[in-house]
Amino acid sequence: GASQKAKQASTPCTKGDWTKASCPCCESKQVEPLVLVKLGGKVGPETKRWLIRLIGAQQKDGGAGLLAHPGEDAQSSIIVVSAPRCTLLRATEELGLCKTYHTGEMEAFSYNDRDNFRNSNNMEAFLTLAEREYIVKYELEGLRAQKDLRIPGLPDKYTLHNRDNIWQKLCSAGVIVDMFPLHNSEKLKQLKEAWYLGNQLSQPLDSVNEYFGNSVAFYFSFLDFYTWSLLPPAILGLSIAYFSGTFLSIIFLLQNLLSPDIQVDSGLMVSGHMIQAVFSMLWSTVVMELWKRRSATLSYRWGTLQLAERFAEPRPSFHGKLGVNPVTGRVELLFSEWQRDLRMLLVSVPVVGLFLGLVVVGMMCFYWGEAQVKQLHKDWDSYLSQTFLYIPSVLHIVYTNMLGNVYRNVAQALTEFENHREESAFENHLTAKVLVFTFFNNFAVLFHIAFFKQDVSLLRKRLASLLIVTQLVNQVTEVVIPFLVDRFISAPRRNEKEDDPQEDKFRNQRSLPPFPGLFAEYIELLVQFGYLSLFSCVFPLTAVLLLLNNVTEIRSDAYKICKLFRKPFYPPVANMGVWQIAFEILSFASVVSNCWLLLLSPHVQVWGQENGLSGGNLLLMAVIVEHVLFLVKFIIAVVIPDEPYWIRKKREHMEYASMWALRQMVSLSCTHLILKSGCHLFDCFSFSFFQTLEARES
Amino acid sequence: GASQKAKQASTPCTKGDWTKASCPCCESKQVEPLVLVKLGGKVGPETKRWLIRLIGAQQKDGGAGLLAHPGEDAQSSIIVVSAPRCTLLRATEELGLCKTYHTGEMEAFSYNDRDNFRNSNNMEAFLTLAEREYIVKYELEGLRAQKDLRIPGLPDKYTLHNRDNIWQKLCSAGVIVDMFPLHNSEKLKQLKEAWYLGNQLSQPLDSVNEYFGNSVAFYFSFLDFYTWSLLPPAILGLSIAYFSGTFLSIIFLLQNLLSPDIQVDSGLMVSGHMIQAVFSMLWSTVVMELWKRRSATLSYRWGTLQLAERFAEPRPSFHGKLGVNPVTGRVELLFSEWQRDLRMLLVSVPVVGLFLGLVVVGMMCFYWGEAQVKQLHKDWDSYLSQTFLYIPSVLHIVYTNMLGNVYRNVAQALTEFENHREESAFENHLTAKVLVFTFFNNFAVLFHIAFFKQDVSLLRKRLASLLIVTQLVNQVTEVVIPFLVDRFISAPRRNEKEDDPQEDKFRNQRSLPPFPGLFAEYIELLVQFGYLSLFSCVFPLTAVLLLLNNVTEIRSDAYKICKLFRKPFYPPVANMGVWQIAFEILSFASVVSNCWLLLLSPHVQVWGQENGLSGGNLLLMAVIVEHVLFLVKFIIAVVIPDEPYWIRKKREHMEYASMWALRQMVSLSCTHLILKSGCHLFDCFSFSFFQTLEARES
Repeated sequence: GASQKAKQASTPCTKGDWTKASCPCCESKQVEPLVLVKLGGKVGPETKRWLIRLIGAQQKDGGAGLLAHPGEDAQSSIIVVSAPRCTLLRATEELGLCKTYHTGEMEAFSYNDRDNFRNSNNMEAFLTLAEREYIVKYELEGLRAQKDLRIPGLPDKYTLHNRDNIWQKLCSAGVIVDMFPLHNSEKLKQLKEAWYLGNQLSQPLDSVNEYFGNSVAFYFSFLDFYTWSLLPPAILGLSIAYFSGTFLSIIFLLQNLLSPDIQVDSGLMVSGHMIQAVFSMLWSTVVMELWKRRSATLSYRWGTLQLAERFAEPRPSFHGKLGVNPVTGRVELLFSEWQRDLRMLLVSVPVVGLFLGLVVVGMMCFYWGEAQVKQLHKDWDSYLSQTFLYIPSVLHIVYTNMLGNVYRNVAQALTEFENHREESAFENHLTAKVLVFTFFNNFAVLFHIAFFKQDVSLLRKRLASLLIVTQLVNQVTEVVIPFLVDRFISAPRRNEKEDDPQEDKFRNQRSLPPFPGLFAEYIELLVQFGYLSLFSCVFPLTAVLLLLNNVTEIRSDAYKICKLFRKPFYPPVANMGVWQIAFEILSFASVVSNCWLLLLSPHVQVWGQENGLSGGNLLLMAVIVEHVLFLVKFIIAVVIPDEPYWIRKKREHMEYASMWALRQMVSLSCTHLILKSGCHLFDCFSFSFFQTLEARES
Repeated sequence: GASQKAKQASTPCTKGDWTKASCPCCESKQVEPLVLVKLGGKVGPETKRWLIRLIGAQQKDGGAGLLAHPGEDAQSSIIVVSAPRCTLLRATEELGLCKTYHTGEMEAFSYNDRDNFRNSNNMEAFLTLAEREYIVKYELEGLRAQKDLRIPGLPDKYTLHNRDNIWQKLCSAGVIVDMFPLHNSEKLKQLKEAWYLGNQLSQPLDSVNEYFGNSVAFYFSFLDFYTWSLLPPAILGLSIAYFSGTFLSIIFLLQNLLSPDIQVDSGLMVSGHMIQAVFSMLWSTVVMELWKRRSATLSYRWGTLQLAERFAEPRPSFHGKLGVNPVTGRVELLFSEWQRDLRMLLVSVPVVGLFLGLVVVGMMCFYWGEAQVKQLHKDWDSYLSQTFLYIPSVLHIVYTNMLGNVYRNVAQALTEFENHREESAFENHLTAKVLVFTFFNNFAVLFHIAFFKQDVSLLRKRLASLLIVTQLVNQVTEVVIPFLVDRFISAPRRNEKEDDPQEDKFRNQRSLPPFPGLFAEYIELLVQFGYLSLFSCVFPLTAVLLLLNNVTEIRSDAYKICKLFRKPFYPPVANMGVWQIAFEILSFASVVSNCWLLLLSPHVQVWGQENGLSGGNLLLMAVIVEHVLFLVKFIIAVVIPDEPYWIRKKREHMEYASMWALRQMVSLSCTHLILKSGCHLFDCFSFSFFQTLEARES
């Protein structure tokens, strides 16, 4: 309690208690606490001491090459970790990050050439906070035993074998309970002010990148870009709504919201709907192409254009046989690609298909049950039978939720089973699996209405309610509930004071729930985008509603990540990964659904009858329009380059420089290199080593 | 005449008459004549002497660094050119060719590291004949004036200015009339024997690559691959034909050929046609995907996986402003990309569109004229009016041919106007333009019948006659006529004897017509592939006919290129370029046309009526099938990797080695490099130079 705190009045994160950096260039007066490792309650002091030594040991001795701090004393159950300069710089090279060269260009960082990079003496300016924290995690999770090893204070069954991943073993042994990056309260305050406390229109994306890493920054950039790009369809939707009737647009809007099945029946509606549909189909492709260009620019700016994940160590839980990597020549775990493909094809695809089938079965049961219950209610017509009316819906919701939860675990297990080498591949495959399911779950009912029931007005009703209800529900569950929980349950327990010891502040950060990840945020956008692009022609004001939603979404998401959750770790990434593809697929699928919906719409049917077109001819016309739109979208996608011209030139320049270096390199004797490059001895050996090995293989 | 020949009994291509190689390592006893340059009749001896000096001068003095031989004497109008070792090796590096390293792997050739590459002392084993000849052409055509210069013996208007392309100037001044690579009669004989003189099933692709270069080798590889891959659809087509009726398959086949509109009307036909159509749609995607993999393998094998055309000098007729290339840092001509895009968008696309429109107009006029003439014939019914019946066809053929000729020149001019930097880009854009037009010209009538007249039996009749007639016509015009011309007109004039002087043999090669290029060969395949994939469902024996045709086509094409034409120059290429894309587009377009034709086919219509499906429902079914097939084809295309696994690993390994070299490189001081790499002084300077320049720019 209070007395204990008073004892430790001296702030413990001073230099004295940190482990020593191994090289003199890394010595610094102020050590920045980056990551907090929370140990299990029963971890003995000898285990903690061993762990601190391991974290502080040099990498060549099998350590992490980091700095560790034991917290208040040897008994406390936390370790605060930081990183010295050399470790950070080496990891920067290993991750393939680009940094500002002395010429002002972004260049792939090279440890040997560190003096030519700007700020390479000041880590807080050279790397972003998120990068520094990620590097600590990367080094800790990458720790592998160099020989068989007993962990002091643990039973024998936790003995480490050669090349075992130490961190995983410690987690499974309960030694490590948790690990999270620490907030920097000053920077956080600045970020908040620039982000959501004012009335600013633009987001401080560079600061977000600096503080939360570029995964988060990419999400917010996309949200920003997408929200702005909603303006044209919103304006078009509003003007169509305005010009389409004698009503004032506002009245129309309200009417639309309250009873969307009452339609303004004017001649203009047909062409208005068509304009809206064609516009939104082409708009979506243009937006996605422009976003790709923007994404490439951001990636260059944030130094992730040349990430070298493929050439780095595999992810911690990757397993396989020890062998020589044919690409890098390093001895590491290998897992054959065709085996992974086989696992995906024979296990993952059928299982995912099965779950999608279960969604359909659930939906069918729901419709069947609803029909039965309605019949029952008609026959009996009592209070009891009226309550029965809700049973199918309730059962369906329960079923869907359970299925979703089971599926999430199954997807995780499947992706783990696929045994991807790189973290990003793992993430992308996992995301893709969950994404397909969630999307299917969200849209199955709408597709059913659109393609089987072929009931446009029901679709419109459903869409309007979904747009309004789900967005309200989302905002509430995402922000309001965590806010209330934080305010009235967690915060009183935290009760932070200015003069609390640093450790308690760190510990308090643990009382926040962990950040649930960007998946929920992206899927929300994707579902939105789906409503807009797939079905917008039945409800022209979709874009307006989404625009309004997103303007608040930006702020609430920012508030959420800054205040309501623990700070997350995010690895450097070069783009949105699989989300990019999902949006593009949706954009193409929109052509099919829009053409179909236009064909179904009563206005078009009436127009066809007036012009003496049979149903078959109308269908033929729709098919032709669809094919033309496909072609136009495809041409737009090909013609707009994915990277701006100047980035392409930069990339080619990097390629040329590498090619040139390789040609020069091979002519220099290897001995010379060893003399010059000192600590990269290993690399140089491995380079000649793998050439020999390859020669032997072939 | 004969007396003159007797005078020059001493074979003149001995060492004595060749210009001296500048460096001692290039001295060799035997100089291999590679390229013949034919001078104009009025070229004076001083011009010829100047030209020989220029060809022999070192590259740093503005020469080509090659070896030249004046032919019989200073008055003769030819120059025979060869290349010394150092020039060949430097050009190999510049072109980015991969060669066998001492480890047995293919590695990008580096001049500095030449001693570690196999056979780098023996140019005839190190480079293929085609490569050696292409390098000579590359060096000659790349000659640029280093200062203002008068050419001796030419009027003042042909004075060269700084950085003018010398070879172009000489061609336009009539000094150089012709330039072609020389045959090596011994190698040619071996090649012929291995290629088409026996009964071999497989082609000697590596020898073709060695002798004619990899553009030609890629064509024959594709022809080979494609012919083999016709087997499954041919077998399917035959078996469907066999099982589809009570007739024997042979009778059916003959019937089909003679009067394709008499159809066997059995229940099996419907499902047979459908199986055929669905099979051929999926087959085409699988074939193209597998070909991409084969193509990547061949490219690795032939050392063109890492061509560095982007980093080399621009093509001779490229024009622009002098500036610093942002990629390589060299001072060279630059032309902004957006200007090229603008030219393509505002000039090329509309002009090509106009010509396509003219094709349509021509076709409409033809149909209109035909109707008019038929009416006239009906009204008059005389001999005169009967001859009138042929007028529209004749006019249409004349119109189409004229349009085709005009278009070819226009396409050339347009592509020249687009001012592409790389030879391959120029070729691809030119090919694409001509290709679109030719394809449109070939298929306009068929599409018209299929989609507007909707007459399946007419389409079948037309397709059968096209398949048989055009293939016969092609074989005749491509092989028989040149053969006859060669045998009875050219050959008697050549009248070669064993003891003729070498020069006369060279001169005789000039009497052959120049090789018309691979365009005609590829377009033939593409049109075939079009018949097969677009319309195969109306005529199931297409694949059988094509298979038969292609088996002879392989031999006749081989005979043609070996015997009937002058040897062509071909640059190294990594794949089929734009043809690859054309085949893939066709493969996707086939889904639309096949589904449409199936829908039209009377069997399906009858089947629909029997099953109580209205026209609209039938159309809907066809559309659904089409979309599913699109999806399946798309998934197949994505799932089958474009490169075999081992090639991807090799590519990644090269990337890794370059990255690694760059990181090591930057840490070494530049002075050291200059000392070590000697003749690459310029490169090294330019490297630091462009970094400075870029810094100044930004």
